[in-house]
Amino acid sequence: MNKQAEQIKTAVEETLAKTESIGGVKQLYFVGCGGSLGALYPAKTFVETESSTIKTGWYNSNEFLHATPKDFGPNSMIVLACHKGNTPETIKAAALGKEKGATVILLTWLEESEIIQYGDYVVHYEFDASPDHLAGDIDYAGEKTLCALYVAVELVNQTESYANYDKFAEGVDRITAVIRKARKHVAQRALDFAQEYKDDKFIYTMASGAGFGAAYMESICIFQEMQWINSAVIHTGEYFHGPFEVTDADVPFVIQISEGSTRELDERALRFLNKYAKRIETLDAKELGLSTIDSSVVDYFNHSLFNNVYPIYNHALADATKHPLTTRRYMWKVEY
Amino acid sequence: MNKQAEQIKTAVEETLAKTESIGGVKQLYFVGCGGSLGALYPAKTFVETESSTIKTGWYNSNEFLHATPKDFGPNSMIVLACHKGNTPETIKAAALGKEKGATVILLTWLEESEIIQYGDYVVHYEFDASPDHLAGDIDYAGEKTLCALYVAVELVNQTESYANYDKFAEGVDRITAVIRKARKHVAQRALDFAQEYKDDKFIYTMASGAGFGAAYMESICIFQEMQWINSAVIHTGEYFHGPFEVTDADVPFVIQISEGSTRELDERALRFLNKYAKRIETLDAKELGLSTIDSSVVDYFNHSLFNNVYPIYNHALADATKHPLTTRRYMWKVEY
Repeated sequence: MNKQAEQIKTAVEETLAKTESIGGVKQLYFVGCGGSLGALYPAKTFVETESSTIKTGWYNSNEFLHATPKDFGPNSMIVLACHKGNTPETIKAAALGKEKGATVILLTWLEESEIIQYGDYVVHYEFDASPDHLAGDIDYAGEKTLCALYVAVELVNQTESYANYDKFAEGVDRITAVIRKARKHVAQRALDFAQEYKDDKFIYTMASGAGFGAAYMESICIFQEMQWINSAVIHTGEYFHGPFEVTDADVPFVIQISEGSTRELDERALRFLNKYAKRIETLDAKELGLSTIDSSVVDYFNHSLFNNVYPIYNHALADATKHPLTTRRYMWKVEY
Repeated sequence: MNKQAEQIKTAVEETLAKTESIGGVKQLYFVGCGGSLGALYPAKTFVETESSTIKTGWYNSNEFLHATPKDFGPNSMIVLACHKGNTPETIKAAALGKEKGATVILLTWLEESEIIQYGDYVVHYEFDASPDHLAGDIDYAGEKTLCALYVAVELVNQTESYANYDKFAEGVDRITAVIRKARKHVAQRALDFAQEYKDDKFIYTMASGAGFGAAYMESICIFQEMQWINSAVIHTGEYFHGPFEVTDADVPFVIQISEGSTRELDERALRFLNKYAKRIETLDAKELGLSTIDSSVVDYFNHSLFNNVYPIYNHALADATKHPLTTRRYMWKVEY
């Protein structure tokens, strides 16, 4: 068990002890902005799927502030992700948590920041801070996505007993090796992708299941934010109920084929793409080695895999477009 | 109270009586595909915001089938929307509900269809079946979006007591008049919009709060499905954390300014658009008359308003693009 998982296990134990006299933890909210919100998606799906008693929600910080669930209070835990601890909406959401008597768990990278004063627990996650996240030498099991999952898994296990707790821990032990190998595996195809897609004005990402958040992040943080390429994420199950009508030979798609329970949805969408589209980049979790993680828990590891394979593509794309991933026109530059 | 609301009130009463000995209703799931899923969005947000005990979820039917929540069973209610009762994934999800002993509420339009055999309650909603939904002579309070909301409101009220129940009922009484007036109000601007946007290859929709589902539907059902225009929906709170970097003079946006708790998010995005974008179509719920509904409940009526104002725009757009809203290349035509 890594240090973040240990810290979170203790935090959940203490929170349950603290709230015992008022009925325990009844809600677990995941709140953040942009990429920090996307990273919390697998944890939200874990609670939705595995818990039978805990109410959950996955909110943009500003939406959470303005349309706060009525039950948010002493029986709630709130997990907020805030990379540098300085996102105003997320700081306010953390402050609201403090004010309402909720247990506030902050996932953040910097040691010191404005937000940490509002955390009952401040978890400093692992982060590959090298240019374009290329170094690949971190312990991926300590990343924010998994930290959020640890909160979900510990809370469900400690309140309802989670049958696959040990399998999940085994998955955690394996994920870093899987990711490192996968990043090497896609090196050449990432270069090919960059050449093929560098002049596109628009790219779709596609996904389903607990890994959907990774496709959301690739769409809004990379294509839109860092490459100024218009983009949308399509759920592979929703694809056949509207979106597939845009499919054509010249429309580019990046599709995640996940491992686990929703794989069939992704494969169905890929079969259709293979018939009617021509420009398809496929990231297949099985081919990328995720199947070494037990099928009872593998769903929740798709995000970590895909989200850490994308940087290889993103770096190659930025090189080909001559648009560095760090270039912004509005973010941190103008008032908003 | 209209007939759908009456039927649903009774259905919830009966379900609570039936499940009393096993602890009542603990989960309320909303399941559908494409536009039918989008229409269930406000009801999901209602439970998330107003209930403190009921677990909820909003799922594409095929995702629900493959990644079914572990607690789905006799303590669950599932609301499925299926317009003609013939969507295979939704039929299977309804059948799964029956098999698991959940209470199955079907929202559907046709009197007879394959799905209705799986419904404990079959609610036939109002629907404007005129070409391009232009007639505008239906009772909008009987539409599927509001039927799903009735389930949510009744369940929360009958189990936890909903303080704004009467205000909600007043909103229901007002919504049809608001929508009819709003549809007339946008007639000319819809024609202008169509001329301005008819050659676009890509259009963003934007929204927040309980009305977000209407922007999702406009993006996937109209722009993508019925006009073959690439499109994405951006949450106005998320906009500043990635997506806003695509903003430019030539990028077209359709933005919903909702009434209620998240209005500030939408107004902030609009202020930014007004500075850095040039092609902005604004649908403002306040201007369109929604403020006559009490502020304690108005959030949940944004969807009905926007979703019924869009058809005026959509008809004008289809006229201008000479691409009828009924034209498909894949849906119902090829195998998928």
